[in-house]
Amino acid sequence: MEKWRRSERMVLITKMLLENPQQLFTLGFFADYFQAAKSSISEDLSIIKETLQKTGQGSLETVAGAAGGVKFLPYNSFEIENEFLDELVSMLSNPERILPGGYLYMTDVIFNPIIASKIGAIFAHRFQGRNPDYIVTVETKGIPLALMTAKAFNVPLVIIRDGSRVTEGSAVSINYVSGSTKKIGTMSLARRALPTGAKVILIDDFMKAGGTAKGMMEMMKEFKAEVLGMGVLVDTKEPEKKLVDDYLGLLELVELDEKNGRIEIISKN
Amino acid sequence: MEKWRRSERMVLITKMLLENPQQLFTLGFFADYFQAAKSSISEDLSIIKETLQKTGQGSLETVAGAAGGVKFLPYNSFEIENEFLDELVSMLSNPERILPGGYLYMTDVIFNPIIASKIGAIFAHRFQGRNPDYIVTVETKGIPLALMTAKAFNVPLVIIRDGSRVTEGSAVSINYVSGSTKKIGTMSLARRALPTGAKVILIDDFMKAGGTAKGMMEMMKEFKAEVLGMGVLVDTKEPEKKLVDDYLGLLELVELDEKNGRIEIISKN
Repeated sequence: MEKWRRSERMVLITKMLLENPQQLFTLGFFADYFQAAKSSISEDLSIIKETLQKTGQGSLETVAGAAGGVKFLPYNSFEIENEFLDELVSMLSNPERILPGGYLYMTDVIFNPIIASKIGAIFAHRFQGRNPDYIVTVETKGIPLALMTAKAFNVPLVIIRDGSRVTEGSAVSINYVSGSTKKIGTMSLARRALPTGAKVILIDDFMKAGGTAKGMMEMMKEFKAEVLGMGVLVDTKEPEKKLVDDYLGLLELVELDEKNGRIEIISKN
Repeated sequence: MEKWRRSERMVLITKMLLENPQQLFTLGFFADYFQAAKSSISEDLSIIKETLQKTGQGSLETVAGAAGGVKFLPYNSFEIENEFLDELVSMLSNPERILPGGYLYMTDVIFNPIIASKIGAIFAHRFQGRNPDYIVTVETKGIPLALMTAKAFNVPLVIIRDGSRVTEGSAVSINYVSGSTKKIGTMSLARRALPTGAKVILIDDFMKAGGTAKGMMEMMKEFKAEVLGMGVLVDTKEPEKKLVDDYLGLLELVELDEKNGRIEIISKN
């Protein structure tokens, strides 16, 4: 087995860590992989840790003990995250985004994989330490954000289906009332999609009155899931009282005046 | 501005490249960022390039000329990719995955962000050089694979909605006939979601007769889009004649015998 130079090891260790966020890598694993002394690897990891720290772009957590090692946490500094959220605000504040019916067009932004990836990492950071087993969303628009949140946590995604078109064996369906339009909807989740008693974080793109969020919460009860948190990218100022109490909104839609083409969004951070 | 050691630059350059696949970074950009001589940066990039090459994990493309620089292409060697596809085959070949009606349960696999990410990179590799402007899918199950393909190409994702529930201004709806069940379905796409004349690659998780794929192709015609390719994770051996001619399937479902609990899947590579 050939020897690697430190600069080469830097490239490969960084790559492995970044592609597998939250995964524990032991010193021994890297030592075997590179046929290098643990002391060299340990020094490599210190350099990576300090470099990430210096730039505020992600961090390396050291887990002590016999089964110890390092984990990459894809969390940027709050400063970098807030700057990014401010950029999002200016992208979304364009009056051309006002849709008939007073909706906000944001599909192009949240379906951009680099942007979705950054938002996912921010959710993971804000919910740091809660260690979900799954990220749960309801189709369709929240899926990219939820998938990227799942990536940042390195856990699987579960998608609740809108309607009752589940072809995956027995399923639980619940009715929910849209908080803003008062329409009754159905959402369904296959039994095998989520084991009983899992710990979950719910992610969605938008919350107005919170009817969908409440539906998701009720669905989670059916699976005896423990909801560790709920995150939405944008919530609306009105109605101030949502149907769910405890959630995190990154941005707030303060005003959307269709008639006068005025829109105001703020970052809540 | 402080100076950075090579080992530190290695970490940060690798991170920037990996997080922004396909994006051109100039020597000048890195030289400015690190306050380092272009010759040092050039040497850094050579080391990264050779290290990636040596392990077959991604590659660094050098773009020559005044506006030149480097791009990270997240393509593993075919050997690594095929090993991964073989792993997928063994995951999916479990008879417990057979669903009533003769369907294959693969949601847990394709909603796993690390797996979806690898599949996305494989699609991007197989369609290397085609340079799409957008990746297009139809909701719901193909979304994670399509988003990760979009990430590997660093282009936006477009999701065609199932049904006609589009709340995003004027939309095009088309009817399509499911090739296997002969049921008529509707799919819709908002006008503003995709500019006229865009170059696209279509991605989906599964193809039986190809009715949905044909519907997507027709939708693309409505937007005068140029379809550069279509990729599906799994296609079925039967019917051999699909409703679309030109597509790439990574895995093939040869047999799914619900009665006898037998399933055969192969990798087509």
